[in-house]
Amino acid sequence: MAQNIYDQDDFFAGYSALRRSREGLAGAPEWPSLRAMLPPMAGRRVADLGCGFGWFCRVAAEAGAASVLGIDLSEKMLAKAREAGGNIVYERADLETLVLPEAAFDVVYSSLAVHYVADFSRLARMVAVSLAPGGRFVFSMEHPLYTAPTAPGWIEREGRRVWPLDAYLAEGERRTDWLAKGVIKYHRGIGTVVSALLAAGFALTHLVEWGPDAAQIAAHPEWAAELDRPPFLLVGAARTFR
Amino acid sequence: MAQNIYDQDDFFAGYSALRRSREGLAGAPEWPSLRAMLPPMAGRRVADLGCGFGWFCRVAAEAGAASVLGIDLSEKMLAKAREAGGNIVYERADLETLVLPEAAFDVVYSSLAVHYVADFSRLARMVAVSLAPGGRFVFSMEHPLYTAPTAPGWIEREGRRVWPLDAYLAEGERRTDWLAKGVIKYHRGIGTVVSALLAAGFALTHLVEWGPDAAQIAAHPEWAAELDRPPFLLVGAARTFR
Repeated sequence: MAQNIYDQDDFFAGYSALRRSREGLAGAPEWPSLRAMLPPMAGRRVADLGCGFGWFCRVAAEAGAASVLGIDLSEKMLAKAREAGGNIVYERADLETLVLPEAAFDVVYSSLAVHYVADFSRLARMVAVSLAPGGRFVFSMEHPLYTAPTAPGWIEREGRRVWPLDAYLAEGERRTDWLAKGVIKYHRGIGTVVSALLAAGFALTHLVEWGPDAAQIAAHPEWAAELDRPPFLLVGAARTFR
Repeated sequence: MAQNIYDQDDFFAGYSALRRSREGLAGAPEWPSLRAMLPPMAGRRVADLGCGFGWFCRVAAEAGAASVLGIDLSEKMLAKAREAGGNIVYERADLETLVLPEAAFDVVYSSLAVHYVADFSRLARMVAVSLAPGGRFVFSMEHPLYTAPTAPGWIEREGRRVWPLDAYLAEGERRTDWLAKGVIKYHRGIGTVVSALLAAGFALTHLVEWGPDAAQIAAHPEWAAELDRPPFLLVGAARTFR
């Protein structure tokens, strides 16, 4: 079973205070890029894996999705999501073992959740089976450059700020202290992620190493560092055959 | 026009002394992985962009390719390639401006050349047009983690060897000193490379961030560093429509 860090009090409090938790998708700088990868939601059957507070589920429902299913492991987050209402079904499940019904969705979305999953190949195969032909899997994850290092964190090197990369090809568990101590994530390279999708029968449609644009850096100068080491990987894939 | 560094005496001498120059594909540790992405050569029309000394061209010809065309900018390398013989046509051209005939090839191969090309999107479109439907484009390039840093080279950080990553999303020209001073290469991220292929009408078939395997590290312990920062990106793509 995946670590349920989001239900740990210190992590939940810290996460709840993040801009993306308070403001929803408007507070997630990568959202415009991710949205551009999504098909129109109207009339589609949509699932969100790792739905958190349900921000995306509500956007999908308001855009006229035929149905919206939000999945998360965190009871605290699901409780908040349900409070916010909307014509959405929320279910608690572990992405490590979740099995969705076959050919039941047109769009499976996931924001910053798959790096908590140890077995991404299993998840990719399960999502492929859950999609109707032509269905889309659109997700974001922490960029592998962010998860790779054994000691992540900017360092100074001869007056420059550099990211101390190592262990990129040493895939697997990483324990970091982010909002709480001992948060478990799984590092895997872009090649591994893409290969798992291709092996699951997906055609790759989008691959974006996200960094802030000029307008975002003007508004948040401290984000410029993200250009040195992209924080997020955004991926779009289409279910092409069965 | 692309920089013709290979015809510069100091670079050519240094390059000629590399194991991959002396031993050919057997001296290129990534070759087994790249070969696994290639379709059988027998009966295929093959082009090699940046063919160098012609090692791959001779392998393709010996494997029964219907025709083999080797393209390079370096007169010195083409002269050596022609000396070695084989039923191969060698032509001098700049990958920056090369236009191959339409639908004339089944396999376009390129080893460690596209990072010398400023406009990869143009090259991808040109290769797509040059391939018959179902044709394959299989190539290697320096991994963007290798080309990104403004000051590449391992550093020591608290007893660990780390790669000082910066400027990953700052794509474009890089000048480095490798075999000669002022070698010009072009850095672009994996997302940019893959997106250019998709935009050109390719379906991605393979994406491998290459590092040495356990047997290679046992034979060459100094290669273990490459696991911290993969040196090569290997890409396979199929021409799917016209």
